[in-house]
Amino acid sequence: MIFGTKKGTPIIFPGTGTGGWESALTNTLSPGDKVLTFRYGQFSHLWVDMMQRMGLDVEVIECEWGEGADEERLAAALKKDTHKKIKAVCVVHNETTTGVTSDIAGVRAAMEGASHPALLLVDGVSSIGALDFQFDKWGVDVAVTGSQKALSLPTGLTVLAVSDKALASRAAAGSKRCYYDWADQLATNPAGSVPYTPSIPLLYGMQASLDLLKAEGMANVVARHARLAEGTRRAAAAWGLDLLCKHPRWRSDSLTVINAPAGIDSNLIVQEAYRRYNLSIGVGLSKVNGKVFRIGHLGNCDEVMQASALAGTEMALLSVGAKITPGAGVGAAIKYWAETSKVIPTR
Amino acid sequence: MIFGTKKGTPIIFPGTGTGGWESALTNTLSPGDKVLTFRYGQFSHLWVDMMQRMGLDVEVIECEWGEGADEERLAAALKKDTHKKIKAVCVVHNETTTGVTSDIAGVRAAMEGASHPALLLVDGVSSIGALDFQFDKWGVDVAVTGSQKALSLPTGLTVLAVSDKALASRAAAGSKRCYYDWADQLATNPAGSVPYTPSIPLLYGMQASLDLLKAEGMANVVARHARLAEGTRRAAAAWGLDLLCKHPRWRSDSLTVINAPAGIDSNLIVQEAYRRYNLSIGVGLSKVNGKVFRIGHLGNCDEVMQASALAGTEMALLSVGAKITPGAGVGAAIKYWAETSKVIPTR
Amino acid sequence: MIFGTKKGTPIIFPGTGTGGWESALTNTLSPGDKVLTFRYGQFSHLWVDMMQRMGLDVEVIECEWGEGADEERLAAALKKDTHKKIKAVCVVHNETTTGVTSDIAGVRAAMEGASHPALLLVDGVSSIGALDFQFDKWGVDVAVTGSQKALSLPTGLTVLAVSDKALASRAAAGSKRCYYDWADQLATNPAGSVPYTPSIPLLYGMQASLDLLKAEGMANVVARHARLAEGTRRAAAAWGLDLLCKHPRWRSDSLTVINAPAGIDSNLIVQEAYRRYNLSIGVGLSKVNGKVFRIGHLGNCDEVMQASALAGTEMALLSVGAKITPGAGVGAAIKYWAETSKVIPTR
Amino acid sequence: MIFGTKKGTPIIFPGTGTGGWESALTNTLSPGDKVLTFRYGQFSHLWVDMMQRMGLDVEVIECEWGEGADEERLAAALKKDTHKKIKAVCVVHNETTTGVTSDIAGVRAAMEGASHPALLLVDGVSSIGALDFQFDKWGVDVAVTGSQKALSLPTGLTVLAVSDKALASRAAAGSKRCYYDWADQLATNPAGSVPYTPSIPLLYGMQASLDLLKAEGMANVVARHARLAEGTRRAAAAWGLDLLCKHPRWRSDSLTVINAPAGIDSNLIVQEAYRRYNLSIGVGLSKVNGKVFRIGHLGNCDEVMQASALAGTEMALLSVGAKITPGAGVGAAIKYWAETSKVIPTR
Repeated sequence: MIFGTKKGTPIIFPGTGTGGWESALTNTLSPGDKVLTFRYGQFSHLWVDMMQRMGLDVEVIECEWGEGADEERLAAALKKDTHKKIKAVCVVHNETTTGVTSDIAGVRAAMEGASHPALLLVDGVSSIGALDFQFDKWGVDVAVTGSQKALSLPTGLTVLAVSDKALASRAAAGSKRCYYDWADQLATNPAGSVPYTPSIPLLYGMQASLDLLKAEGMANVVARHARLAEGTRRAAAAWGLDLLCKHPRWRSDSLTVINAPAGIDSNLIVQEAYRRYNLSIGVGLSKVNGKVFRIGHLGNCDEVMQASALAGTEMALLSVGAKITPGAGVGAAIKYWAETSKVIPTR
Repeated sequence: MIFGTKKGTPIIFPGTGTGGWESALTNTLSPGDKVLTFRYGQFSHLWVDMMQRMGLDVEVIECEWGEGADEERLAAALKKDTHKKIKAVCVVHNETTTGVTSDIAGVRAAMEGASHPALLLVDGVSSIGALDFQFDKWGVDVAVTGSQKALSLPTGLTVLAVSDKALASRAAAGSKRCYYDWADQLATNPAGSVPYTPSIPLLYGMQASLDLLKAEGMANVVARHARLAEGTRRAAAAWGLDLLCKHPRWRSDSLTVINAPAGIDSNLIVQEAYRRYNLSIGVGLSKVNGKVFRIGHLGNCDEVMQASALAGTEMALLSVGAKITPGAGVGAAIKYWAETSKVIPTR
Repeated sequence: MIFGTKKGTPIIFPGTGTGGWESALTNTLSPGDKVLTFRYGQFSHLWVDMMQRMGLDVEVIECEWGEGADEERLAAALKKDTHKKIKAVCVVHNETTTGVTSDIAGVRAAMEGASHPALLLVDGVSSIGALDFQFDKWGVDVAVTGSQKALSLPTGLTVLAVSDKALASRAAAGSKRCYYDWADQLATNPAGSVPYTPSIPLLYGMQASLDLLKAEGMANVVARHARLAEGTRRAAAAWGLDLLCKHPRWRSDSLTVINAPAGIDSNLIVQEAYRRYNLSIGVGLSKVNGKVFRIGHLGNCDEVMQASALAGTEMALLSVGAKITPGAGVGAAIKYWAETSKVIPTR
Repeated sequence: MIFGTKKGTPIIFPGTGTGGWESALTNTLSPGDKVLTFRYGQFSHLWVDMMQRMGLDVEVIECEWGEGADEERLAAALKKDTHKKIKAVCVVHNETTTGVTSDIAGVRAAMEGASHPALLLVDGVSSIGALDFQFDKWGVDVAVTGSQKALSLPTGLTVLAVSDKALASRAAAGSKRCYYDWADQLATNPAGSVPYTPSIPLLYGMQASLDLLKAEGMANVVARHARLAEGTRRAAAAWGLDLLCKHPRWRSDSLTVINAPAGIDSNLIVQEAYRRYNLSIGVGLSKVNGKVFRIGHLGNCDEVMQASALAGTEMALLSVGAKITPGAGVGAAIKYWAETSKVIPTR
């Protein structure tokens, strides 16, 4: 349901999204295989690092942090690959470092434009179940997510959808694998079994979580995330702060990454939120550390919870001496949410 | 600890605050005994009703809803009681209908001024554990609270502190009683036992809850409630709305009761908060129904949670067409909290 | 469902079975009213004590502990009451002190035999939901139970079924009452409300508990308790120990009370079970203290759980030097259960 | 504490014991490296399978199922390895398929006898935290366990202890690895961090679990498992059934694997236990399927719980027509436990 697929094969491992990445690579590729990917944040960077450690020949399209998967540069890179040596295109759908959501349909279009047969492997850890995701329609070959993001569960499951093409590539994939080998899952799951001890509580939890999403309806879930995100962006604007995400088309609806006011270390804002107001917001990771802070809005979350995060952030901004009008940010969000609110169907 | 007593005897019943009231009356009084009390809200009204049903001769000082225990009227009533027929003065410390906290020290002073020997029975259900309470210093004879307010537990325990004088009055108290008889508790508790099946989970819960309050320190707990309340009052002022509570000295730090904007049914505000924003705020009870709404701020609660309630209320006010500036109320609270914030000691 | 009634009115109070008793008395009777009851254990004794403290004129049919409600003695007492002064007959259905289940249908028959109009008030705390109970068919007027027995919940709710006749008696009932007054429940429940703060977690819990009983089917629930009880009785026989319950017709299916071996203090058995084997079985209460021990088998319980209790008891018996063959008791139960077992329907 | 090490480095991954195996191999070895191991059950078989899939050159000492790590055969194999090509000896400490506990001290002695420098990698999934384990004393290089066995937690953590020698081997280990790479843990753990999202609930759970084990004392924990196991073995003997484990020295104290009576399919016993008595015991895996059944006794477990399992098994044996005396098995266990019981220190 959350993957938007009727054709893909679901596979669940006890592990994290990082394990899902590894699984996507080792089951479809061999050491030495060429892959094409983007680096525009810490998570895409870590995936690149993993690809290299797994012995792949990685071509990285380097982007500024705050950009997404640029379809033109992708098309150009694919075009240069006249011998179709690139076996897979790997894209982080929603980059949690920068608040950037790339356009997977656009990526697929670029691949089709180049008539390129590579697999399309997508990290949907912080998007699937919260943002629109169309596995079948977008022609995704492997999509990876985890239990601890849009599913609002503890960490411990990584969940994949796999296309028939990706399954077929497994036979020739020479990467060593065992724990994250699809084969053992595929061999046992049809009989209702698993290859090694599963996490029963998380499987029950996932069932409950999917029931909640189903009851709300995925279209409504996606719309809710969009509403929460737009309120958060309006708050940032009212604080006079820019988003790290360069272009409106890439702005993430699952988290918003905001540039700290000039001259203020963003770590201090995060620290004050925690120390004074008992609120956890995200620091800037790696090369944007000190420059941005991150506010999440995915999973089981509504307007008043988000207002809580905005209010705490606003207080933290005041505590570090930012020149903002108290209430400006929360007020902008409130205005937007009140103007666009609907009655909750069950009320 | 939460009662502010070293001399009082604690008694715990499986029941609610209403049961604690009954216990306070039946263990100290006989049908026909005269009691003096105030009526200034639904809870003081219900206690008056109980007194009458228990066959007591109740003299009620009728007040406007929004007022507290007026010490002068109390003094006058006691003065008239030249034969000292009044056996007990019953006061609701914090009236949850109106957001009024009466001054129990002042009540005791009035009783002393009249050299009156009546017992002082206090309903502290929505105050004890959140607001300052000095059982010994204020000369309280019976104080009643419950598990579901400041202790942040489910409903199911009523907890009393009882003075030696109140205990001594038990022998002559002719009211029929059994379930809520102190005698059975007093007979069994010293040996670590109870007269009938206890609620073990709630007793463990209370221990945990008291540990949290102790770790924070009661003075800090009281200060936290004062901060949350002041922020809420500033929000109301920024919305241009009056409090039901007439006089600043009586304003409650555990909940705030706000008059609806002119021409707007307060039930509609509460309804919209629930229907559109998934927020539960309190309706006006009984004779202030439709006129006021209530925002709580007691128990395990901090600034960002309270901001959440204020933001939701503000959105509901906007949804019913109140003429307010989005962000004005939350902004006023945020400003106050940010200006007066301290680092949480454990951070 | 558990009461076996379609006509009775259900009433739920936050409190315990003891509160349910009080409620049954104060809502139907006036101080000075005559009531007829039996004393054959600690719980019937405590209810007698409550009746006396509530000012009722209590006629007690004194029985040996281990006997139940003797219908002939009841008939005789009712016959003597030529002026029909007895307002209520009060019977403990299942006496948890002695493991005796009285025959409520027989009690009603005796009342009908004497054409007596008294109300029939029944304590079903440790029977209803586990043993067969037919409120309508047996002509019960008030039946009382609690959340912590057959419903397998924490303590904190007392649940009543009330006949129209009992409801009608309320108007004339002069006992002072407030917390446990039916009136406030009857006035508010039809609108889905309650007169004072309810225990929400326990109400959800009760719903879940009733769902489980419903899924199993009450006839199956009753049969399960009978099976567990019979196994326990066979274990006692195999240990060479007598039951406290004198007559087979009165043997309880919700707990079994067993006489300690000659010369052995039963408290020691209970103590050794706890100290050495981490097992809680019941001491003998009041006048059978030291003489009997009690093994429960009601609520969410099956054969292997019960085997666990029997094994622990057997080890404790061995530890105190009882002359028994290891495995004899558990073996007798196992033999019976294995011979009579059925496949669980959902398996 | 549970590893018996002061020198080893602890590493925790979100994953299962299977992941721990992989981690032990990929961080110390390169494809093509020679390893020596035993196959005497399904879990040792699966580890062999993993070694082969990871590209290792695996020399397997094939044993009958029911045997443990034979030190003489190990010594012989090591002796033949004159060029010290064997890089690691891999041993499953407690084989959960067969109820066999191998002697790791003996394994180390055999390695020392051969003056062999290979690493000693040990699967302690179903032993560590329940059985005696001496990482330092036995010279173990990598020991692997999981959260869901002796720690009595849900599945989801694999926990390792790693010797300095094993850590040092990492640099040269050419196996591709990323998710289960020690390097990322070693780089982040000292600063209190982790390389990717951890399972916070399980980490808290492990702390609680270790607190319980510490309070009991590891020597007492080991003794408790030995007591439970001996009772279970006596039950099997009283049923006239043999253990799959050939030699007394190898009998596991964390689970017991019992041969089904002649002519009876062990799956039927397991099925009847589940269908009739709501008890889950283990089927025989792989080549002993149908021939044995398995009864666990590790983790948070005591005599009455174990009696419950034995009673249910006994009933299931009766249900499938085994010729046993009801109570014989449980009785033998009870006799042993009662004769050897001690007072629980906290009672």
